[in-house]
Amino acid sequence: MPGNSRAAGTHHSRPSSSEEPPDLEDQELLLAAAYVSDAQYNRNVPFETSPQAIRLYHFYNHWTMRAATYFFIWVNLALALFEEPAVFPLPFLVTSIAEVLCLTAFFGRLVHFAKVTPQKVFWKDTKNICVMVTIVLTLIDLVIYGSLEAVNIRGVRWSRALRPVFLINFPESRQIRRTFRSIRNTLPDILYVFLLFLFSMMIFSLMALKLFGDRDLRTVEGSPYFTNILDIAFELYVLVTTANSPDVMMPAYELNWWYSLYFITYIIINTYIFMSVFLAVIYNNYRKHLKVCLLPPSGSLSLSSAPHLRPFWHLPAPGQSGVWACLLPATLSLSVLIILPGFTHLHANEIHTLAYLKHHKMTEAFNILKVKVGTEFVVKEARWRRLVKVVAPDVSSSHLELLLRISDEGQKGHVDKVNFLRLADLLNIRVVAINIKKHPLETWMPRVYQSSTSLLVQKMVQHRIFVWVYDVIILINAIFIALDEKDSLISYAEWLFLSLYIIEILLKLYTYEPSAYFGRKQFWNWFDTLIIIAALLATVANTTIQARKYNSQQVLDIVLILRILRLLRVIVSIQRFRVIVTTLINIGPTMLTFGGLVLVVYYAFAIIGMEVFHGKIHFLDPGSGSPDALVCGNPALKDSAFAQGRYCKNNFNDLASSLILLTELTVVNQWHILADGFALVTHQAAKLYFIGFHVVVVILIVNIFIAFILEAFFVAYSLEKSEVETAIEKKIQELGVGVQEEEVQNGGLIDNMDAKDSGFSADEGDNKKKDLKGLYFRIASKKYKTVDTLLQQMFESEIAPEGKDPSLKEILSFSPKKVNFDNSA
Amino acid sequence: MPGNSRAAGTHHSRPSSSEEPPDLEDQELLLAAAYVSDAQYNRNVPFETSPQAIRLYHFYNHWTMRAATYFFIWVNLALALFEEPAVFPLPFLVTSIAEVLCLTAFFGRLVHFAKVTPQKVFWKDTKNICVMVTIVLTLIDLVIYGSLEAVNIRGVRWSRALRPVFLINFPESRQIRRTFRSIRNTLPDILYVFLLFLFSMMIFSLMALKLFGDRDLRTVEGSPYFTNILDIAFELYVLVTTANSPDVMMPAYELNWWYSLYFITYIIINTYIFMSVFLAVIYNNYRKHLKVCLLPPSGSLSLSSAPHLRPFWHLPAPGQSGVWACLLPATLSLSVLIILPGFTHLHANEIHTLAYLKHHKMTEAFNILKVKVGTEFVVKEARWRRLVKVVAPDVSSSHLELLLRISDEGQKGHVDKVNFLRLADLLNIRVVAINIKKHPLETWMPRVYQSSTSLLVQKMVQHRIFVWVYDVIILINAIFIALDEKDSLISYAEWLFLSLYIIEILLKLYTYEPSAYFGRKQFWNWFDTLIIIAALLATVANTTIQARKYNSQQVLDIVLILRILRLLRVIVSIQRFRVIVTTLINIGPTMLTFGGLVLVVYYAFAIIGMEVFHGKIHFLDPGSGSPDALVCGNPALKDSAFAQGRYCKNNFNDLASSLILLTELTVVNQWHILADGFALVTHQAAKLYFIGFHVVVVILIVNIFIAFILEAFFVAYSLEKSEVETAIEKKIQELGVGVQEEEVQNGGLIDNMDAKDSGFSADEGDNKKKDLKGLYFRIASKKYKTVDTLLQQMFESEIAPEGKDPSLKEILSFSPKKVNFDNSA
Repeated sequence: MPGNSRAAGTHHSRPSSSEEPPDLEDQELLLAAAYVSDAQYNRNVPFETSPQAIRLYHFYNHWTMRAATYFFIWVNLALALFEEPAVFPLPFLVTSIAEVLCLTAFFGRLVHFAKVTPQKVFWKDTKNICVMVTIVLTLIDLVIYGSLEAVNIRGVRWSRALRPVFLINFPESRQIRRTFRSIRNTLPDILYVFLLFLFSMMIFSLMALKLFGDRDLRTVEGSPYFTNILDIAFELYVLVTTANSPDVMMPAYELNWWYSLYFITYIIINTYIFMSVFLAVIYNNYRKHLKVCLLPPSGSLSLSSAPHLRPFWHLPAPGQSGVWACLLPATLSLSVLIILPGFTHLHANEIHTLAYLKHHKMTEAFNILKVKVGTEFVVKEARWRRLVKVVAPDVSSSHLELLLRISDEGQKGHVDKVNFLRLADLLNIRVVAINIKKHPLETWMPRVYQSSTSLLVQKMVQHRIFVWVYDVIILINAIFIALDEKDSLISYAEWLFLSLYIIEILLKLYTYEPSAYFGRKQFWNWFDTLIIIAALLATVANTTIQARKYNSQQVLDIVLILRILRLLRVIVSIQRFRVIVTTLINIGPTMLTFGGLVLVVYYAFAIIGMEVFHGKIHFLDPGSGSPDALVCGNPALKDSAFAQGRYCKNNFNDLASSLILLTELTVVNQWHILADGFALVTHQAAKLYFIGFHVVVVILIVNIFIAFILEAFFVAYSLEKSEVETAIEKKIQELGVGVQEEEVQNGGLIDNMDAKDSGFSADEGDNKKKDLKGLYFRIASKKYKTVDTLLQQMFESEIAPEGKDPSLKEILSFSPKKVNFDNSA
Repeated sequence: MPGNSRAAGTHHSRPSSSEEPPDLEDQELLLAAAYVSDAQYNRNVPFETSPQAIRLYHFYNHWTMRAATYFFIWVNLALALFEEPAVFPLPFLVTSIAEVLCLTAFFGRLVHFAKVTPQKVFWKDTKNICVMVTIVLTLIDLVIYGSLEAVNIRGVRWSRALRPVFLINFPESRQIRRTFRSIRNTLPDILYVFLLFLFSMMIFSLMALKLFGDRDLRTVEGSPYFTNILDIAFELYVLVTTANSPDVMMPAYELNWWYSLYFITYIIINTYIFMSVFLAVIYNNYRKHLKVCLLPPSGSLSLSSAPHLRPFWHLPAPGQSGVWACLLPATLSLSVLIILPGFTHLHANEIHTLAYLKHHKMTEAFNILKVKVGTEFVVKEARWRRLVKVVAPDVSSSHLELLLRISDEGQKGHVDKVNFLRLADLLNIRVVAINIKKHPLETWMPRVYQSSTSLLVQKMVQHRIFVWVYDVIILINAIFIALDEKDSLISYAEWLFLSLYIIEILLKLYTYEPSAYFGRKQFWNWFDTLIIIAALLATVANTTIQARKYNSQQVLDIVLILRILRLLRVIVSIQRFRVIVTTLINIGPTMLTFGGLVLVVYYAFAIIGMEVFHGKIHFLDPGSGSPDALVCGNPALKDSAFAQGRYCKNNFNDLASSLILLTELTVVNQWHILADGFALVTHQAAKLYFIGFHVVVVILIVNIFIAFILEAFFVAYSLEKSEVETAIEKKIQELGVGVQEEEVQNGGLIDNMDAKDSGFSADEGDNKKKDLKGLYFRIASKKYKTVDTLLQQMFESEIAPEGKDPSLKEILSFSPKKVNFDNSA
């Protein structure tokens, strides 16, 4: 396909217009760029190295293609909003056409992938098989449902529960996939604890039956108390979630206070101890799979192929239990793992493999581009520039210059191997170029801006008291908000506060250089300003609407929320709060991964729930006075706790309601009443759906969430800059173009500004400084790093840059799928 | 006091009757024994070294004295059962006399302590001051209350809430004290997170007021919804505990499903994220205070005084933030600590100090007893023996022999310094002497026991199928229990099962040697047998009573419970279950410490609760038909959720009820209804008591519990034998007197018996074996170790046995109280 090849070529050769290269070199460059880009984004799929395949591969990884894939995934998931039972109903024909479109897109993506990757690898990958099977199943389901629909029989759209498969299995969702794999690996351990837990529950159920069954006790609702073994088991399972405590205990407790000991024992054992053990097992597995070293099966494999690893191993005799310790030399921790015989199955560490792969790919790229200068191989500056332009087309020229300065330390016109290998990491570090310019007003009318009044104002704004005054204003504002706003005086006060805030921002913009104030990572400044502007717009809109006697509840609600969100600004000025919030924001991305995981599970459960419970319970306006409204449109619910609690709105009648209901079930409280309600309108077995949801979401997922947060916090507590980052910062400082982040954050740019002043007024004619004049850099997101990146960096420092590297084959033979051994054998 | 001195002397010189020593040597021995004993039990109080003080010190640490102290502490705590409001009322005169008696005992203990410890140390110790102040306060309270009582005015016995002080502050409760100290150290971090949490709650309350306040919504009970800012704040606080979810959301949700997003956002932020952050902060602190290395203030101190520590330090520049890493070389982990500027205050590590102190004390003891043999100083065997007898009077002579063999490796008749220093640890390791004898029946009637029938029976019992058959029997039994036992057939089946179990035990006793079967650490055998015997006795008792037409509910309940507990035997035969249960049992002691902590907090809250809420709510039998019974004897509760939920039994009318109620509050569910109930009968401010309890117990204590369990599990996962234990085991194996624990546990003594057979029939005349003939040893509780011991051992291996040791003064200057520095300065 010459046309295709030309198109891709045009696309990628665009940046390298300065010098016309021979076509062959262009090919090499593209191949090297593919390697570097893979290393940068940790993609570990092997690709074909034919020129055409490389162009296709670049195209495959182009952001537009990935964005398109995500778009179709979300469209496909969103279809549930429009299908019966729908929030916004659309005819079946429309949704099915949309679904087929999505499936086509997925299939296309898969074909594209098959073209760039070796056939063997493609067909061995379960991900691809999984996607293909899901596509076929969905098509079959669509056809069956469509034909049934044609003859007016309502079928079950079961394949909809499979839709999250696409979210999991497209290669970009590595994080979610890893979490799922981690869950799968945890399952055996969890399973035995769970069985023991069930056993203990059974023992307690039998005891309850014998102790209370014949006493003729009654619950508060007047139903018999603890007479049926299945009911008892359910009640006790609910008690584990604490949802029916203390009600379930009261009848027995009233009989004799002695019996309360039974329940207290039960709660201590099953709620506190077992639930903590679940957390411990999950957390332990989570840490293990992240941090464990690459373990050769029974001490036999691969130590020879990776000789520089040996110092980090302490190997017990093969087949024995013992401690496998791996010292992570750089920074963090000595992670130790015990192989209890037959208790723990080990998997080779993905992270470790990733680090090796990255190293391998960068070496490949280096080998393609290298030329010999003197005794060592290097990459010439011109080639290096073109490579970076291909890999990261949107890098600014000043950033490129900085990277070159760091990589080409001696300014010799070429980059050596060690520095070249760092390129992938360097590209991953976001450097913010702070363009320190004079204040526009200063350029425009220097006299006025430098007048004593103006300087006084600037001093004032920079003063600490200015911050405090505004904190007090915010607090007074809070009190006013709490007061009733029907009073017109208070409603005027609102305008006063708003104008005070706007004055504050204007004053700050007057004092600080605007483009620095709204720098890329000035989160809190952005936050401040956006909230105020939004509040201003909303208030104006609201007043306009009200003036026309047209009262919009939505706009009013937004105004109210924005008005209150303004109070969050207090956090900015309290150092300790800012630290906590910054940590929370930094672990945000990790939580988003977790959000993906939750979405997958919720979606599947919601679809199943809608198929099973759709239309059984209706919310009817209780104001209508209809007797049906009190029993949620279903007579089976008469006198049930569900109807008495006015829970009718909690149903599975559309996707939104289902997701809200599942959220309530995750919170756990009163879930037994919800489960009972749905069991009454269908069948007692419906409770299994709710118990299943509890086991999956609350016992597994919520504990993983806690493990996530714990680990993220520990990493945040124990995190410092990586070596690469430190190198960059050193260079930035050396070049004299650095800005301390602390200064920027703490002093509200004051110190920064001072630095600017001194720097420019003195105008020390530093040689290096001149080249990047007016540009200051700092490393963005200094504190934030994913656990992943961190661990990889630790492993990387194990890999000797020189010396014999393991071949790609050897590295892949480390891969988790292969080195999956069972040491109990 | 010559009498006293002679008495103590008689007491301690008893074991050394073999050779008559000069009196001076006796003194030395006692001093050395005091040091060794301190090292063994990790006591770190300095003591006077005058002969009389040492005798007093031995007496102070004698188990009788400690037991007496604990006895009085428990009596003092138990007094709350007998004081108004009492479970078992006693006149004030009786309880006050008992209390004065306890106080006298505490005072006596304190005086005793003052006699043995240097005055300066005594008066500097906050523990002692604390105890004295509490004694005085209690006496004052007693006098005031007594005089008021005399003139018939009811006072408040406020000093009762102080009683747990004694439990915390007597030196034996080091664990609880450390936990309290850890909590105190965590408080600053927790406080800021808590303030931020309150701030976020306030923001959400304001939003709720604005969004829902004017909508004229009603709750299910018909009361106005979200109209008062204080009510909203309380409801939202309750929502954090999830206790009123989803009820609190339903009115808004019914209005518009959009509003549910407000509640979901609130729950995600405040319930999930903030509560996890609390756990993270607490867990982080918990680990930090246990594992952190000894940190010199700002990198300046003591590196010179402890030069062998240096390799383990990575010091950031003084005064800067950075990573303080300390490599624990032996086994476990590289614990890393970050000093975020102004965020973390560090305390030197107690554990580290303890390890140093132990080393120091053992060295002192060695220096007292040493004599020069050849070029090195050693302790002669005879002296060593006498020392061990004084330190551990109840050690068996075979155990003593084993210890000597381990300590005196070359059998040179003396113990060198390295081995002497290990003594404290050796004494802490419980070695079980297994006396492998022939089966009594074999001795008594060898023909019959060795006959082919008898051998067949033994083979049968040892076979795996025998275990499986009984597992099946247990399962069938479970089904029979679940069935109604009114049927006489089933009630006969009960006797059948009982006899089957008894036959099983008899068969086992026939096959295995009884004293080995009931060995000290054969937990599961004991468990099995005791349950069966108890069930037998209870059933017989029950039948006897029933035969006389006298139906005792208590006995019947016990029979029922015992019958069901028998089912637990299934756990024994499933390997995976046994592993989990063993881990749980192993972390039991840690959990008991935690129990002490809970008791202290519960007791104080119970006393306060009884003073405030006593008598406000009464439980009246609802069967009586009295209208008061429906409102718990208090008209204020009319129509309240408290009365409707039949919660009258949940009151503060005596200690038992209070503790049960506090347990319910710990479980959290419905706690807002309980709080509301008590607020109705007293004052809205009463809710503060419940909120306070929630903050202290659920946010602090429960999270500490989870941290406890997590840590205990990780330690259990990553635990292997310590070096000292390995040394002992090696010796045991060398001596040929070892028994593998796995064999004993897994094979149900089968392999053990085989070993016995081969050992005795072959009768290899091993020289070493002969000395300890018929005695086999194994290390008890191989897997169990507290986190404490483990960490100490890790630090110990840092301490070079030779080389200049830091002096006592230097060690004490490491102590947490002194090296308490603030790096923000």
